Amino acid sequence: MADSELPTRPKPEETTQATPAEGGDSKNASKNALKKAAKEKAKAEKAAARAAQEKAQAAAAEANDTAKGLYGQLPETNDVISATRFSELSEEYYEKEVTVVARVDNARVQSAKLAFLMLRQQGQKVQAVIAAAEPISRQMIKYTGGLNVNSIVQVTGIVKKPEIPISSATISHLELHIRKVYMISEAAQMLPMQVKDAERPPPTEAEEGQVDAEGAPIVTLKTRLDNRVLDLQTETSQAITWISSGVAQLFSEYMIKSGSRWIFTPKLVGAATEGGSNVFEVKYFKRNAYLAQSPQLYKQMCIAGDMESVFEIAPVFRAEDSNTHRHLTEFAGLDFEKTFQNHYHEVLDFAEDLLVFILTQLKERYAPQIATIQKSYPKAGDFKLPKDGKALRLNYMDGVALLKEAGVDMSEQERFENDFTTAMEKQLGQIIRDKYDTDFYVLDKFPMAVRPFYTKADPKDSRFSNSYDFFMRGEEIMSGAQRINDIKELEASMRAKGLDPTQEGFEDYLNAFRQGCPPHAGGGLGMNRIVMFFLGLPNVRLASLFPRDPQRLRP
Amino acid sequence: MADSELPTRPKPEETTQATPAEGGDSKNASKNALKKAAKEKAKAEKAAARAAQEKAQAAAAEANDTAKGLYGQLPETNDVISATRFSELSEEYYEKEVTVVARVDNARVQSAKLAFLMLRQQGQKVQAVIAAAEPISRQMIKYTGGLNVNSIVQVTGIVKKPEIPISSATISHLELHIRKVYMISEAAQMLPMQVKDAERPPPTEAEEGQVDAEGAPIVTLKTRLDNRVLDLQTETSQAITWISSGVAQLFSEYMIKSGSRWIFTPKLVGAATEGGSNVFEVKYFKRNAYLAQSPQLYKQMCIAGDMESVFEIAPVFRAEDSNTHRHLTEFAGLDFEKTFQNHYHEVLDFAEDLLVFILTQLKERYAPQIATIQKSYPKAGDFKLPKDGKALRLNYMDGVALLKEAGVDMSEQERFENDFTTAMEKQLGQIIRDKYDTDFYVLDKFPMAVRPFYTKADPKDSRFSNSYDFFMRGEEIMSGAQRINDIKELEASMRAKGLDPTQEGFEDYLNAFRQGCPPHAGGGLGMNRIVMFFLGLPNVRLASLFPRDPQRLRP
Repeated sequence: MADSELPTRPKPEETTQATPAEGGDSKNASKNALKKAAKEKAKAEKAAARAAQEKAQAAAAEANDTAKGLYGQLPETNDVISATRFSELSEEYYEKEVTVVARVDNARVQSAKLAFLMLRQQGQKVQAVIAAAEPISRQMIKYTGGLNVNSIVQVTGIVKKPEIPISSATISHLELHIRKVYMISEAAQMLPMQVKDAERPPPTEAEEGQVDAEGAPIVTLKTRLDNRVLDLQTETSQAITWISSGVAQLFSEYMIKSGSRWIFTPKLVGAATEGGSNVFEVKYFKRNAYLAQSPQLYKQMCIAGDMESVFEIAPVFRAEDSNTHRHLTEFAGLDFEKTFQNHYHEVLDFAEDLLVFILTQLKERYAPQIATIQKSYPKAGDFKLPKDGKALRLNYMDGVALLKEAGVDMSEQERFENDFTTAMEKQLGQIIRDKYDTDFYVLDKFPMAVRPFYTKADPKDSRFSNSYDFFMRGEEIMSGAQRINDIKELEASMRAKGLDPTQEGFEDYLNAFRQGCPPHAGGGLGMNRIVMFFLGLPNVRLASLFPRDPQRLRP
Repeated sequence: MADSELPTRPKPEETTQATPAEGGDSKNASKNALKKAAKEKAKAEKAAARAAQEKAQAAAAEANDTAKGLYGQLPETNDVISATRFSELSEEYYEKEVTVVARVDNARVQSAKLAFLMLRQQGQKVQAVIAAAEPISRQMIKYTGGLNVNSIVQVTGIVKKPEIPISSATISHLELHIRKVYMISEAAQMLPMQVKDAERPPPTEAEEGQVDAEGAPIVTLKTRLDNRVLDLQTETSQAITWISSGVAQLFSEYMIKSGSRWIFTPKLVGAATEGGSNVFEVKYFKRNAYLAQSPQLYKQMCIAGDMESVFEIAPVFRAEDSNTHRHLTEFAGLDFEKTFQNHYHEVLDFAEDLLVFILTQLKERYAPQIATIQKSYPKAGDFKLPKDGKALRLNYMDGVALLKEAGVDMSEQERFENDFTTAMEKQLGQIIRDKYDTDFYVLDKFPMAVRPFYTKADPKDSRFSNSYDFFMRGEEIMSGAQRINDIKELEASMRAKGLDPTQEGFEDYLNAFRQGCPPHAGGGLGMNRIVMFFLGLPNVRLASLFPRDPQRLRP
């Protein structure tokens, strides 16, 4: 392999040999490896010969090139480069020389003497210009204007104030006058989609393959997700992934500060204890295992193990064949479980403050990212938080009453045996926003019939339970409850739900209560949904790095 | 269900009904649920009748009980209890009344007028004593001394200075003179093992079922893990789970401070790309999926997606049939990946500082826990860190030379095509400890033949690679490298390792490089191994909450 193909900056003394692992026998290599390596070698030799010929031809042209060494493959050097980041650039840099490493967002030859580059770094764009003037040669201008879009280049230039602001750049008040331009990593000439086409919000499937009013191709969500690595390069995706990172960070920050312990419970479990049909089956050596649908039983076992307050940040797996805008088969779960002293509302208070903390801090720490995302998804508007910094808490039956006022009446049976439909939830979200001026609220005391077996019934009225859901913009982001911690009560609740406490897989869980367990409550948050509803994104897949649904297992 | 079985403290107005979900029809309930519920009801009524009879008999005895209301089931009250934690107790509490919530570690009636409780809270033990003196009755003493071990009780009493320190308690300079004792959660009379028996380090399998020199039963690791909830209650387990929590916390803290983004990559993947035989297969709707063996390919795709620096904390799945003291089939992975400017040692420096930070801070923040664990596992001794706060970095070949000096000579072929054996690694760990006085060190420049296909070869000598392993006490805890970021080089490396770049599943990964990718490096840490080797634990299962191995899928 020729040196020129090495995209990193090797020091001169490190460049004598660059062929990879020639003849080296790998632990993992098949018996064909050596044969293949020999073929590879022959191929590489041919390529080297061809490259040498090209080099000779180029040398002739280069002889007259005043810009020789100022462009092309990154030269071998011992110089340590300290690149300036776009986010650091300001008016203070006017007339100063900087070196930047960035993607080519666009390259265009204006004339034999002038070319433009749009450079992109994590979605931010800066214009660079190159004009013929000693030592800049026409060859260098041709090279620069002909760079493949999306290639990563190292550009050295003088920061100038443009005559008029460059509206197509995100940093419009400065441009770079190029002195040197070197290739770091070359992109293929043809890309499956252009990053700039993915900058616009995704249209409907029906518009796939069409062009918009300005003649630009319409890129659907499917195409974007199929080419997620390119899609992640957009300014909007960059901002969304920062918000996701922020939610996880703020959750752990709050939990740790409260004295909670970070736990890692198994995802491979021996039995499908939380409802058999929605669980993925795994071949586990000579038997079957299942993927945990939540850490529920395990975090309770940690509480029974005297850990008092625990939290987990881990994938959650749901084998539901739901093809909606808000369902994933794998998502990031933020779970917590805590003992309490007198009443489960101690834990509910804690959880409400947790969410208020996360949402308030997101606004405070990620204001620029939120503003960027709103340019692409303006429809939902700013996320409204309660003015007094305390979560709005209503009872389930208050929600029923609010809906009734708005003309949506649930029958007696529906109230106690069903839950709200998704449409009702959304409507209730709108009613609450209008009435209380908040997009975040809590409903407490759900009907026992709609909650899982481990939920504690309300001692005052057993039709209800000591359980709660958290909502953002009328959609559920957390479910939680006081859990039954008495073995007899737990077994009776299981039987009432049609579950058999003697069924294989429940033994270890139930033993935890036979051995004494303090009163506790907790909840499980869907990280991707928090991001989706906080930002008002139209699809949860936009809030997942590499989303998984019944149809999608790649990239 | 009788109110007395409710282990939480219901307010008076909340106690009119306590039967769970009577007649409520669950979404998940089978058609048999109502039938079962009816049976349940009949059963409950019978139990209630029996309870009423017992109550009447007890009432007769109670009539003469001066301690009536001071013990037994927790009374219904609106009083808000604020329990004191064992960790708060000090000499300042002498002669003061406190209320504590704790487990019964041991209960013993000394005479009709005197009983003792050993109370346990997260492994810490305090003695409580109850003596007959108005209003404490003989009935109350009998009740207290007869409490089932491991039950959770609420005890109110006066803190006293004992005449001589109580050596069997961990807090030996005070004891509690009981005034009230109430049941919060009753444990069964027979437990599969006693927590105090699990306090001792686990013996060999051969000793299973035997008793030790003092006549106490020997509890093997298998029994402890089978009853992990009880085992977690020991002082040692409590301390170990704090250390695990600390490692995750310190890792995220360092990564976030460095400006890295927290990522969540899919664990369900479409193809077994990282070596087919060690991967778990999952039934994914109508096709097969696999569990990711590491986030390697995805974190690299995030780098190609312009995220610059990313980290992940997530389970890692290995279908290896390895039944050793240091292998798990599921463990917590701490992964990171970063771009660099000039040389991969920028990332290696970063990773070394990361580990030094984690290990130094563990010592600083968790000194009491470490001291507790050393009582059970003293053999390994204190973990030695480099005195100057900089990691010791040697080359692989330096390791080979050190072993040779010690009489372990590797042949030319072994040096370049094998790696150290586990025995060699351990011996090298001892040599380095003796020579450099550190238990943490780094080996750089491993042979290319023993590293995966995405590893960058050393440009100076292609027999080696730009890859490194981190060691603690002579055992590997991290593997990392500069990754190939040039598509042609990557495809050639795959072929040299006997892999076919056109194989299904590689397409999305390879496209990421065809579209331009900056130079980058990273690594993956095993959290459980860090905990194990830092503490000198004899088995990695002790550093996992609910360990998974080829034999174990429960609890």
